[in-house]
Amino acid sequence: MPRLLILSAEAREYESILQAQNLPGLSILTPAAAQECELVLGEPDRIAPLLPRLGRLRWVQSTWAGVEPLLRAPRRDYTLTNARGVLSGYMVEYVFGYLLAHERRLLQRFQAQKQGIWDDTRTGTLQGKTIGLLGVGSIGARLAQAAKFFGMQVHGFTRASADCPAVDFYQHGGDLAAFVARLDYLVSVLPNTGATASLVNHQVLQALPRHALFINVGRGQVLDESALQHALQAGSIAGAVLDVFQEEPLPPHHPFWNTPNLLLTFHTSAPSFPADIASLFIENYTRYVAGKPLRYQVDFDLGY
Amino acid sequence: MPRLLILSAEAREYESILQAQNLPGLSILTPAAAQECELVLGEPDRIAPLLPRLGRLRWVQSTWAGVEPLLRAPRRDYTLTNARGVLSGYMVEYVFGYLLAHERRLLQRFQAQKQGIWDDTRTGTLQGKTIGLLGVGSIGARLAQAAKFFGMQVHGFTRASADCPAVDFYQHGGDLAAFVARLDYLVSVLPNTGATASLVNHQVLQALPRHALFINVGRGQVLDESALQHALQAGSIAGAVLDVFQEEPLPPHHPFWNTPNLLLTFHTSAPSFPADIASLFIENYTRYVAGKPLRYQVDFDLGY
Repeated sequence: MPRLLILSAEAREYESILQAQNLPGLSILTPAAAQECELVLGEPDRIAPLLPRLGRLRWVQSTWAGVEPLLRAPRRDYTLTNARGVLSGYMVEYVFGYLLAHERRLLQRFQAQKQGIWDDTRTGTLQGKTIGLLGVGSIGARLAQAAKFFGMQVHGFTRASADCPAVDFYQHGGDLAAFVARLDYLVSVLPNTGATASLVNHQVLQALPRHALFINVGRGQVLDESALQHALQAGSIAGAVLDVFQEEPLPPHHPFWNTPNLLLTFHTSAPSFPADIASLFIENYTRYVAGKPLRYQVDFDLGY
Repeated sequence: MPRLLILSAEAREYESILQAQNLPGLSILTPAAAQECELVLGEPDRIAPLLPRLGRLRWVQSTWAGVEPLLRAPRRDYTLTNARGVLSGYMVEYVFGYLLAHERRLLQRFQAQKQGIWDDTRTGTLQGKTIGLLGVGSIGARLAQAAKFFGMQVHGFTRASADCPAVDFYQHGGDLAAFVARLDYLVSVLPNTGATASLVNHQVLQALPRHALFINVGRGQVLDESALQHALQAGSIAGAVLDVFQEEPLPPHHPFWNTPNLLLTFHTSAPSFPADIASLFIENYTRYVAGKPLRYQVDFDLGY
């Protein structure tokens, strides 16, 4: 009879959703009985400190896509699954919301309205543009499909994977500066691993065309922040949209708050709604009790 | 040998694109020989005043979707085609850009950034929402497809057509207030005809849920502007996005410039790029010389 421990800021909501489902064999533990758990559902930063005490642990379902706190812990004798499948739809909304706002000059129109100006200058379009994706896992694949829907070309930069039919051109590692030189938009969905640190550096930003937009919805560690600040100050790219940063919350005196042509959001690109994550947990729980492989497993060595 | 007259603000660009194509049998007239034309490509407001003089006219390809100046003229002895097929992709970008900006709180995040506030409140999503389309022709059908891509329900309000597979529910005329009561978003792509004048009136706006957003990318005459202003002032709907108005450019003292939760654009939702319109003309020209029916014909009686 699998015993579940919920370690989440929204534990009550998860508990009431799961209780209502009456999942076969599942019992939800009180915090006092935490050590008895076989399954954990929750936020990685709440789970990591308890890992040494959870002697019977077999599976952790993270409510986030990023699982760094668990990867930093030495323990690896359990199955770790994350929320990347559930969050990809929100990532698509975020990335395409900002791409469309950029091309269709949403903020410029807003400023014109405030100034009482009938600004009927033409806008741009996504049609015919080329998007480059850094990382084409489940989130990147959904972005690629959306790009096709809007009539775009899709280039994918991956370690080895090449299985997304919506990607027109793949590059596996190698010279990232050469990869970005032909892009209109560069979007990073890369996780934070040793291999991805500061991958988007001065050289890469200089190789982007001047009209290009950079969006980071992966992890802040992938970007050399100082290099981006200089590129935007110098106008060597058209703009950037960042949802993630080296340090979060972004420190009050960080230059990004006032860097030109830079739009900030606040690690809000993919909200974890308990109803969505609970559905994912229920799907994986059904697989778990049937002895089937769980969906969205994290490879401890690769870090994603 | 069909003789073409180009009546457009971008006549030179059209001429150079068409000359380069070397279309079989086509000759492009100089303005001095205008009366000899059999075909006209151009803007309806430039074409309408010349109609009485064009004795050999057989086909007009409008560079716009809206063709009111030609519908007001008495002459109807020629085939009129518009640009709705080409413009539908831009309409989709516009509508979904603003829907995403609304749900993902793009302007609120922008204000937070300017104030140095790490605003990580959750955003909404398009997933699971219901969009109501006033008009499901070629533009509405593309909007319906996009809505499906983003995981939405689609309701269509049409005169008679019911052939778009992406529409989940159709209502043909009747009580528009009942139609809108279940919507999250109401989008009008309706043309300006006698039947559509002030269709979106006080009663309809009051019937929309308080959280609903109204978008008008069709024609300004469809909306009772005073009713919308009062609905937004009273907070009886969440917001509106308007690209078209009863009078354009919007007069300097119109209350819309400063109405709360109202975003204005300036008849810019679907830019007519000469390269796109020229491709449409070429496709229709090929049909014309082959004696096949032209695409995107306008019915003079229906007005679209």
